[in-house]
Amino acid sequence: MFEKDAFSQWLGIERIQDGPGQSHLKMLIRKEMLNGFGIAHGAITYALADSALAFASNAHGRHSVSVETSISHLLPLKEGDSIETKVKEISLNHRIGLYHIDLLNQDQKLVASFKGTVYRKSEEWQV
Amino acid sequence: MFEKDAFSQWLGIERIQDGPGQSHLKMLIRKEMLNGFGIAHGAITYALADSALAFASNAHGRHSVSVETSISHLLPLKEGDSIETKVKEISLNHRIGLYHIDLLNQDQKLVASFKGTVYRKSEEWQV
Amino acid sequence: MFEKDAFSQWLGIERIQDGPGQSHLKMLIRKEMLNGFGIAHGAITYALADSALAFASNAHGRHSVSVETSISHLLPLKEGDSIETKVKEISLNHRIGLYHIDLLNQDQKLVASFKGTVYRKSEEWQV
Amino acid sequence: MFEKDAFSQWLGIERIQDGPGQSHLKMLIRKEMLNGFGIAHGAITYALADSALAFASNAHGRHSVSVETSISHLLPLKEGDSIETKVKEISLNHRIGLYHIDLLNQDQKLVASFKGTVYRKSEEWQV
Repeated sequence: MFEKDAFSQWLGIERIQDGPGQSHLKMLIRKEMLNGFGIAHGAITYALADSALAFASNAHGRHSVSVETSISHLLPLKEGDSIETKVKEISLNHRIGLYHIDLLNQDQKLVASFKGTVYRKSEEWQV
Repeated sequence: MFEKDAFSQWLGIERIQDGPGQSHLKMLIRKEMLNGFGIAHGAITYALADSALAFASNAHGRHSVSVETSISHLLPLKEGDSIETKVKEISLNHRIGLYHIDLLNQDQKLVASFKGTVYRKSEEWQV
Repeated sequence: MFEKDAFSQWLGIERIQDGPGQSHLKMLIRKEMLNGFGIAHGAITYALADSALAFASNAHGRHSVSVETSISHLLPLKEGDSIETKVKEISLNHRIGLYHIDLLNQDQKLVASFKGTVYRKSEEWQV
Repeated sequence: MFEKDAFSQWLGIERIQDGPGQSHLKMLIRKEMLNGFGIAHGAITYALADSALAFASNAHGRHSVSVETSISHLLPLKEGDSIETKVKEISLNHRIGLYHIDLLNQDQKLVASFKGTVYRKSEEWQV
């Protein structure tokens, strides 16, 4: 899945560690990711969190799709900063999963807080 | 603001129309925006909506920053599809603004639904 | 369902009109619903919206359960005010439904904006 | 504030512990709080969480108002169950505060997950 992911390649996402309900991703903020204020566009942070949501929820072996996601941007990110994910699986039942994802910078400061809800399809797959 | 926005330039965002509480943006889905399933990464749709939120809320002449955003992805987008924004300013008071943004494809079908809350700072600025 | 609903009875919810994807409910703000500031507790407004979500989504004949709800409180409600719901079914597929619900006061002013996502179970039922 | 709060009195909310950014509340589920399925109405859980949000954010001495709240209902509550709050202050700056609130039953199981964003007014007050 990841190898064929063109946008994740552009972002330069690095997978540190994976597992069911977990996904530790890391990324460097580059000049091309900045908005008009010279800080990372909100979609850059969202991209890393949304990717972690997909990895963490699909790693249980059932196809999972996001049904609702929200993000609060707390601190700005500049060129050269790095950002990583810390996933908490809040709840998982037969059909629905709920995840909180912390986005941390290189000083382990919380730069954004993400929440994602997924729907788990019946079909299993090779992860 | 927009001219210096490197990420919006990469996205290829086109500004159709602007105004206080409004922002009609348009974008073409390119190969570099796809995820491992061959559909646009959720962050691409989020990026367009979040940009529209910034344009619409800041066009009132007061510096506005996003405090909470959420998005529901409803239909997949493929390479060659286009996507545009339709902004509704739900509420605006002295300090807080609430916006709903529809994301529509080239057939005017709703592909995602976005909600954004902004905090309006005291300082005015040149828009 | 509604006749046996003790909390809705306490709230005094009146069902104006129903139908698949629709639920027009109305309620009067009473003294027992106020918080320490003399205005309706946020949960009162949430209660009416959440009830409308259940009625509107279950009226399609499939058991639907809420998976995520959010509400923005925009204007205060006082004793003697009335409040009603206006439901918009944003999206409905085999498994997931998305709804926006406006909460309006007696002057048709928007007092709160509610968003709800439901998961639709397989079983049908008598509505 | 709390002593004059009619709805909290009706709910029977008990304040276990308070403090800046904290609010440990507890409540018993009574028959009058049930919906047509014999389980607590979603607004009952929301009510406790929203009250905890108000207590926790206002205890810093600045008037705080909720601007966005969301809740995911994870497990049903029956008559005789109890429910309590565990507040985490995720972020607090000059104007905006972000809170996650866990709702736990008598077995310390997570029955709902709540997120609240507040706007902090300039005025201080006696808490």
